[in-house]
Amino acid sequence: MGEVKIIDLEKSVYENNDAEANELRGLMKDMGIFLLNIMSSPGAGKTTVLMRTIEALKNDYKIGVMEADIDGDVDAKKIASTGVKSVQLHTGGMCHLDAGMTRQGLEELIPEDVDLAILENVGNLVCPAEFDTGASMNAMILSVPEGDDKALKYPLMFMVCDVVLINKIDTVEYFDFDIDKCYEAIMERNPNALIIPISAKTGEGMDMWFRWVRDQIEAWKQ
Amino acid sequence: MGEVKIIDLEKSVYENNDAEANELRGLMKDMGIFLLNIMSSPGAGKTTVLMRTIEALKNDYKIGVMEADIDGDVDAKKIASTGVKSVQLHTGGMCHLDAGMTRQGLEELIPEDVDLAILENVGNLVCPAEFDTGASMNAMILSVPEGDDKALKYPLMFMVCDVVLINKIDTVEYFDFDIDKCYEAIMERNPNALIIPISAKTGEGMDMWFRWVRDQIEAWKQ
Repeated sequence: MGEVKIIDLEKSVYENNDAEANELRGLMKDMGIFLLNIMSSPGAGKTTVLMRTIEALKNDYKIGVMEADIDGDVDAKKIASTGVKSVQLHTGGMCHLDAGMTRQGLEELIPEDVDLAILENVGNLVCPAEFDTGASMNAMILSVPEGDDKALKYPLMFMVCDVVLINKIDTVEYFDFDIDKCYEAIMERNPNALIIPISAKTGEGMDMWFRWVRDQIEAWKQ
Repeated sequence: MGEVKIIDLEKSVYENNDAEANELRGLMKDMGIFLLNIMSSPGAGKTTVLMRTIEALKNDYKIGVMEADIDGDVDAKKIASTGVKSVQLHTGGMCHLDAGMTRQGLEELIPEDVDLAILENVGNLVCPAEFDTGASMNAMILSVPEGDDKALKYPLMFMVCDVVLINKIDTVEYFDFDIDKCYEAIMERNPNALIIPISAKTGEGMDMWFRWVRDQIEAWKQ
């Protein structure tokens, strides 16, 4: 795996993150770049889902990835091994990205002429939900080992998502995970969220997820 | 499971959290209360570890538990079913507890004359590590499905911990989790942390954990 560029993000200078996010979203729309923000707990499988997604879509779209972490660059190197442009963003200890920070990462991807930019947000179910990154769509990954009650405990994360992937669904029996209870809790928080049970490991449900991403990119470009 | 008291925490008025934390720690020492702060990602198994710990120690110590969450009271009710005093703390959307917030919860436990007060912090590997709660000791739970590289990505959490439990160790083969790599990463961040692989489900390693807690309580009381 090759070296990847590490960007130490600077604190945003914008006082109004919502306005900055809307401006960034408009800019991305004008440039035909679909920005997908992926959020989850640490270890829910963001990077693995992302690797599979890149493999499935890279022949049809030019993809660029921003990996946001407090420290390290393991994920960015993994992503780079798929052949797409990958940058590592270091948040300077912060538990989320806002629109100004996302913009700093995008500046590395825009010259590559990408049409799908993916932000892998910091692993965290609280802070990332509080800051609009300017993304076209928000996806969140809940993994089976985390339990079926997470939407009850972290309401905002589920409220801001357009799609919820329930990952590691192949382990559902091992962890006594009640899928009906999980759906119910998510729908209580956000009746409009699309819920897709997947396993990035076995491939279960992944086609439906790929189709959703393709549909959103095509709709965004119109 | 009975009803539990829900406390909506107020924002701390103290400017200097470290000073406030030290003061609280001194107060707890004087009162002979060992305050254990347990941190982890969402779904790493804090509540299950806690349930087993209560069962193992409740005949020898008077235990009280504070469950911190953004919303909900499922965990506090589970804990209450073991017969110990349990209060639910709502953080008002915040991703951590500081010393002032912890003090508000302790005020409910002190009249019960507890000698072991346990704080189950908000599920999050970033923010809780940044705020000293005034705890006597910090424990963190990393679970196998999260992956062996977490100490590389969330350095501060591992640096502030006295003990790291690697939970769900019974699933280690299923998740291709490299235990040596995991130890190495944790020790890189914090060579002084005690690492105990456990399974709260099968009971593996739990006796060592219980012994550690007992030893700490006894040392604290001297």
